[in-house]
Amino acid sequence: MALGTSVPAGTAGSPPSRDEQWTPGIVQSVSPPGTFDLGPGYLEPALLPVGLLDAAYRQALTEFGTAALSYGADQGALPLREALAARAGGRCGPGNVLVTGGISQALQLVSTSMAAPADVVFVDRTSYDLGRRIITDCGLPLREVPGDAAGMDPAALVAAVAAERAAGRRPAFVYLNPTFHNPTGAVMPVPRRRALVSAAAEVGLLIVEDDAYAGLGLDHGELPVSCAELAGYHGVIRLCTFAKTLAPGLRLGWLLADPSLVGRLAGHGMFVSGGCVNHLASLAATVLVRDGCYDRHLRWLRGQLRARRDALAVPLRHQLGHRVDISCPRGGFFLWLRFPDGEREPDLLAAARQAGVVAAAGSRFGTVSRTSLRLAYSFNSPARLTEAASRLGAAWETTAPSS
Amino acid sequence: MALGTSVPAGTAGSPPSRDEQWTPGIVQSVSPPGTFDLGPGYLEPALLPVGLLDAAYRQALTEFGTAALSYGADQGALPLREALAARAGGRCGPGNVLVTGGISQALQLVSTSMAAPADVVFVDRTSYDLGRRIITDCGLPLREVPGDAAGMDPAALVAAVAAERAAGRRPAFVYLNPTFHNPTGAVMPVPRRRALVSAAAEVGLLIVEDDAYAGLGLDHGELPVSCAELAGYHGVIRLCTFAKTLAPGLRLGWLLADPSLVGRLAGHGMFVSGGCVNHLASLAATVLVRDGCYDRHLRWLRGQLRARRDALAVPLRHQLGHRVDISCPRGGFFLWLRFPDGEREPDLLAAARQAGVVAAAGSRFGTVSRTSLRLAYSFNSPARLTEAASRLGAAWETTAPSS
Repeated sequence: MALGTSVPAGTAGSPPSRDEQWTPGIVQSVSPPGTFDLGPGYLEPALLPVGLLDAAYRQALTEFGTAALSYGADQGALPLREALAARAGGRCGPGNVLVTGGISQALQLVSTSMAAPADVVFVDRTSYDLGRRIITDCGLPLREVPGDAAGMDPAALVAAVAAERAAGRRPAFVYLNPTFHNPTGAVMPVPRRRALVSAAAEVGLLIVEDDAYAGLGLDHGELPVSCAELAGYHGVIRLCTFAKTLAPGLRLGWLLADPSLVGRLAGHGMFVSGGCVNHLASLAATVLVRDGCYDRHLRWLRGQLRARRDALAVPLRHQLGHRVDISCPRGGFFLWLRFPDGEREPDLLAAARQAGVVAAAGSRFGTVSRTSLRLAYSFNSPARLTEAASRLGAAWETTAPSS
Repeated sequence: MALGTSVPAGTAGSPPSRDEQWTPGIVQSVSPPGTFDLGPGYLEPALLPVGLLDAAYRQALTEFGTAALSYGADQGALPLREALAARAGGRCGPGNVLVTGGISQALQLVSTSMAAPADVVFVDRTSYDLGRRIITDCGLPLREVPGDAAGMDPAALVAAVAAERAAGRRPAFVYLNPTFHNPTGAVMPVPRRRALVSAAAEVGLLIVEDDAYAGLGLDHGELPVSCAELAGYHGVIRLCTFAKTLAPGLRLGWLLADPSLVGRLAGHGMFVSGGCVNHLASLAATVLVRDGCYDRHLRWLRGQLRARRDALAVPLRHQLGHRVDISCPRGGFFLWLRFPDGEREPDLLAAARQAGVVAAAGSRFGTVSRTSLRLAYSFNSPARLTEAASRLGAAWETTAPSS
């Protein structure tokens, strides 16, 4: 059976939305009853392709049989690594790929394998809160490095590394999120990527490039080349995942790096003992990527996300754009709102909640230059997002400090 | 659909053996062509229940829908944790359970979360080689502790801990494998378990109990209570897995510990960010455990393994028992052979290989008191094991040193 013929393109085999099945004992987080939850970086239930994955698991078990249930190849199944390498661009082959259990698990592996506790990790002042938490939970302290609209400042990174070394501390890596940055949605321009790759190489610092949202460009036009590809896959570990493009419940991702670094990671006893960290799921993904279903699903998903972004951003800008800076993300899951001086985060969150809308506090993500909030457009239908925008517009009119 | 009605008990829906699908790019390790591979702790392809898991994944996706594809509850799906806690015995509830990606992943998590590099881990002189490797790859040095036929010596453990502390090093945990020990197959008697639990508590040392083979008792009679249950789940982390009883390719296991320790582990950013480490697989297992299919499969699998153990052990004892000490394992996957003084491991391995049989070197597993080899009976059919026994009997007659 070729999956491509059994699953209609565009619908991805999705059933109707069934978030009534999202109960706290099963899923990670459940929206407060009756609210419009723009908090988490989740896909809306209706965007999770149950039918497609049902077909993919069946096909993987039919095609690979007992080999799908055995200990998998340590680095991951070769057909998947070949396909992912080919998609990555640059001179990338299967030796550059390690199949992981998603970015969170990969970041824990990198933080414990490529560093020792007390080694220092450099991050954007504002960056993914739970990525920061994984790193600090591995015993690695963070140092925020300043930047501008283009991203982290390379000279500031070099200076920060020098300062840590002068203080007798070892730099572990710099954690970047250049494409559809979480939470800001920003895309780092190629010259800044190139400058950061050079700066890191100059001081011998590993780059860990979190590319969770890389597959989710919503507008026309090429995405910038990854830092990993710019560096020829030397000195950069690029973390990728199917969690945002297919389904987080698979717990499946991959990383790209130079083969010697991949070999070093895959040589950890955890892989030598247990093999691939998610073998059956990786073969289900193999089937989808190989048969073109994944690309068809991605096209469909991008359209769905584009409609959601616009359903939230357009009315919100209309209502609040005169005083709130609202990002225009070209991809990913999030709007980033920066409020005028004098507006307080707790007041804004409380007003939103009063109106039945949950937002993510900007302060969760580190140092923010102005009061900021993150709104996910990924987790609700366009109709609900339009309604949420209307409620937020009304709620936040009244929080504006009287001038 | 109740799975129990769709999958015939006893056959577990297995297709005919299809190890022709086991190719190096897909699976972890492939037997040398034309050999009888008694090396790895694998299940024979024919014992991996393709049909049962196909039905389980379909049922999980039907029943849980998009919730099966979302980020899973950090500690694991409640119905699975409830079922596993009920099976564990003692005063164990879902708060004692953390769903893991298998024992290898759990051991990496424990080694990096509950210890810092250079902290010391205490192990049996002879113990699971790749468990040792996971621990040392996390930067934790090993100290072998002597024991006897009953297992590790509690007084020696206390002394070893004191010696490390006196030398300024911090003890991390003791790694035990009390039930169907890998490689020896030994079962630690309850009094020794009790004494080790007391000794560890006395010196404030965490026990990590690797219970990979606990579900696989092959003879009648109760299995000893786990160290975790003896300790009331205080100060012991018990590592369990579906890899040996269902399929390693799922990469699914669980650990049992006291709720505060489980909460501490599940509070790691890796879980807070990514949720359950293998959510969809855990819901497939939920279905199997709940519907009784897992227990039916276990009964069938135990019968299959019993036939394999006997097919290897009985003729081997008949041919070599007069001079080789061959274990009588009550469960697990392995025979452990101890040879008379003067016989050399490389000669024995070479003679076996010459006869087309692959065995695991005893020296892989640490310090062995006599030349030893491990033979897995899990990875071949009874007929092939009988043939392998005959070949080994002939091969090892000639390696006996002339007396």
